[in-house]
Amino acid sequence: MENFTFYSPTFFAFGKGSESDAGKYVKRFGGSKVLIHYGGGSVVRSGLLDRVKASLDGEGIPYVELGGVKPNPRSGLVYEGIKLGRDEGIDFILAVGGGSVIDSSKAIAMGIPYDGDFWDFYQGKQITEALPVGTVLTIAAAGSEGSGDSVITKEEGMFKRGAGSDLIRPKFSILNPELTQTLPPFQTAAGATDIMAHLYERYLTNSTDVEVTDRLIEALLLTMKHEAPRVIADPNNYEARANIMWAGMVAHNNTCGVGRSQDWNSHAIEHELSALYDCAHGAGLAVTMPAVFKYVMKHNVMRFAQVAVRVWGCQMDFEHPEVTALEGINALQNFLCSIGMPRNFKELGAKEEDIPKLVDVLCHGDGRGGSISGFVTLNEEDCTKIYQMMV
Amino acid sequence: MENFTFYSPTFFAFGKGSESDAGKYVKRFGGSKVLIHYGGGSVVRSGLLDRVKASLDGEGIPYVELGGVKPNPRSGLVYEGIKLGRDEGIDFILAVGGGSVIDSSKAIAMGIPYDGDFWDFYQGKQITEALPVGTVLTIAAAGSEGSGDSVITKEEGMFKRGAGSDLIRPKFSILNPELTQTLPPFQTAAGATDIMAHLYERYLTNSTDVEVTDRLIEALLLTMKHEAPRVIADPNNYEARANIMWAGMVAHNNTCGVGRSQDWNSHAIEHELSALYDCAHGAGLAVTMPAVFKYVMKHNVMRFAQVAVRVWGCQMDFEHPEVTALEGINALQNFLCSIGMPRNFKELGAKEEDIPKLVDVLCHGDGRGGSISGFVTLNEEDCTKIYQMMV
Repeated sequence: MENFTFYSPTFFAFGKGSESDAGKYVKRFGGSKVLIHYGGGSVVRSGLLDRVKASLDGEGIPYVELGGVKPNPRSGLVYEGIKLGRDEGIDFILAVGGGSVIDSSKAIAMGIPYDGDFWDFYQGKQITEALPVGTVLTIAAAGSEGSGDSVITKEEGMFKRGAGSDLIRPKFSILNPELTQTLPPFQTAAGATDIMAHLYERYLTNSTDVEVTDRLIEALLLTMKHEAPRVIADPNNYEARANIMWAGMVAHNNTCGVGRSQDWNSHAIEHELSALYDCAHGAGLAVTMPAVFKYVMKHNVMRFAQVAVRVWGCQMDFEHPEVTALEGINALQNFLCSIGMPRNFKELGAKEEDIPKLVDVLCHGDGRGGSISGFVTLNEEDCTKIYQMMV
Repeated sequence: MENFTFYSPTFFAFGKGSESDAGKYVKRFGGSKVLIHYGGGSVVRSGLLDRVKASLDGEGIPYVELGGVKPNPRSGLVYEGIKLGRDEGIDFILAVGGGSVIDSSKAIAMGIPYDGDFWDFYQGKQITEALPVGTVLTIAAAGSEGSGDSVITKEEGMFKRGAGSDLIRPKFSILNPELTQTLPPFQTAAGATDIMAHLYERYLTNSTDVEVTDRLIEALLLTMKHEAPRVIADPNNYEARANIMWAGMVAHNNTCGVGRSQDWNSHAIEHELSALYDCAHGAGLAVTMPAVFKYVMKHNVMRFAQVAVRVWGCQMDFEHPEVTALEGINALQNFLCSIGMPRNFKELGAKEEDIPKLVDVLCHGDGRGGSISGFVTLNEEDCTKIYQMMV
């Protein structure tokens, strides 16, 4: 196990009706004037936004609003939020929505106190200050409610990049599984896929002797394997949604990723798909992961065999471990398809003829040096082959 | 799943040499004058205390010292620490040691700003203020490095009682597995048993549909089952110690205990043993748990069958689940004995003739009303039978 630090100081309020305490938590964590940031009409139509506002009113906390966050959130709205926040003297950002809204809120939170262009942080500049962020989560997926990460797409060039720091971990996150019950099945499944991807990205490690985190990841994968079909079968299954929601947070606050190298190449390869086609991130991951895993499997067959046996219930082929490893990858793909995720480029809406462009942006875009690194370093040729495997 | 809040704002620095940053973290978390609290001679002899002091000196942070914490820490030293802290104008407590030292430090931290008797908090009074505590952990066991709990024994009556609040969660905890390598095997095994008990106490729930936390608990039990024998076989196995140390923290910071009722009757029944005989808490738990589990098994046979199958590798007897359930309890007991833990009263050093006294203090001591509650409510007759099963 490698040396590490771990800090997850987010306060979580979990359960039915918990959003009614939003105002109380904003006050507890020092907010006196709030920017409520959200996406489209669903938080308005469902009455959630009104309940959150009523909660702020109840504590006498003034607020301004900025809606319009789209999936794969864009830099344009972040600049708008930074200007609005400065003009209005905001000292707290309250994200009401899913990972996109939370990521956009984190970007605004680091942009407001920063003199330069907030995009600097998405190109590797260290974050040294950020306004506090709170969240009211509406989809179990990105894990942004408990993480120090944010992913934004820059319109100029359509680069999708990430920034990270403990400074942008939310001060509080309100997790009410009821709020996810109105999601369309496709969004629910895409969220579940994203959660499972966060687990696989941590599972694929070059660190040795990290059993405790291996076991924790397997525990959460087993949970997703059991709970995701339950919620697809019955969208109103509160218990299944609750299990998924907590799993999604633990999957990404790094409790199970400490002390080990991680992969994240599937995310990088997928990001170019959702940046170009604006597809759901989880749907892109469903197509990307099996291809990446088959391509890199030989780097550590035993690791793939382990997850095949422990999570997917495959019988270990001790004479041919690679058979078991591949069986586990196929089991993952079949599982994701069974909950409604696409299997290939065609089902995703991606085009084979775009592969050269995808590879170029992936390996060279925005300052990258011709390859992406992780479990295995992948160059342009590797990435081309991987995209071709998805066709 | 039940509604819950979860807050674990402790900063963890994990790995080789991490204690050299103690001074840096005290400064980061606001300490300007420190009480270093520790136990016996081992932290002195090993040079650890000197390294911690050098780290404080390096940051220009003054300190006073209070050693002498014993296993099953006593109220007398807490009163002494409170007086010393007040006299010296201490604003930060740095615990260097195991769970006893950390629990004693937490008691001092809540006692210094409180006008009344600190024992009030161990009789149920709500904690509203406490000085910040940091820890340098020397044994993986109690989980106090990441928890909001503290257990103290009151000399008058030898009551062993717990207090809890997010306010006494450590600000930072330094976890260097190397520091545990000099522990005698018995202490290492007792620590492992304590960790496993923290997992079982959470596993035994009356809440339904809590798969995510069930799976996380099972993951940590599987880790302990694999890693504890490795470290008993080779005390210098850093990797095994590292896995155990992180498992011990996650087992007790409540990541895997949220949203579900918990048991803690094994702890209560054991506390009377370690209070009376001053035995190692983990050793007492090794004798207590199998008796308690066999006694309460019928309350939910399937729960015991589940852990038997998933953790202990038992084959499910679908016709007679109680056979599988019992097989799992026996597997736990045999495992604990295999790493050097006692099996019964005799091996623990407890006496059958003390049972009436143990039951009386357990069920009536310090304000209790004749029974203890948890997975199953146990009255005097139940507790008597359970103690008799341990003979």
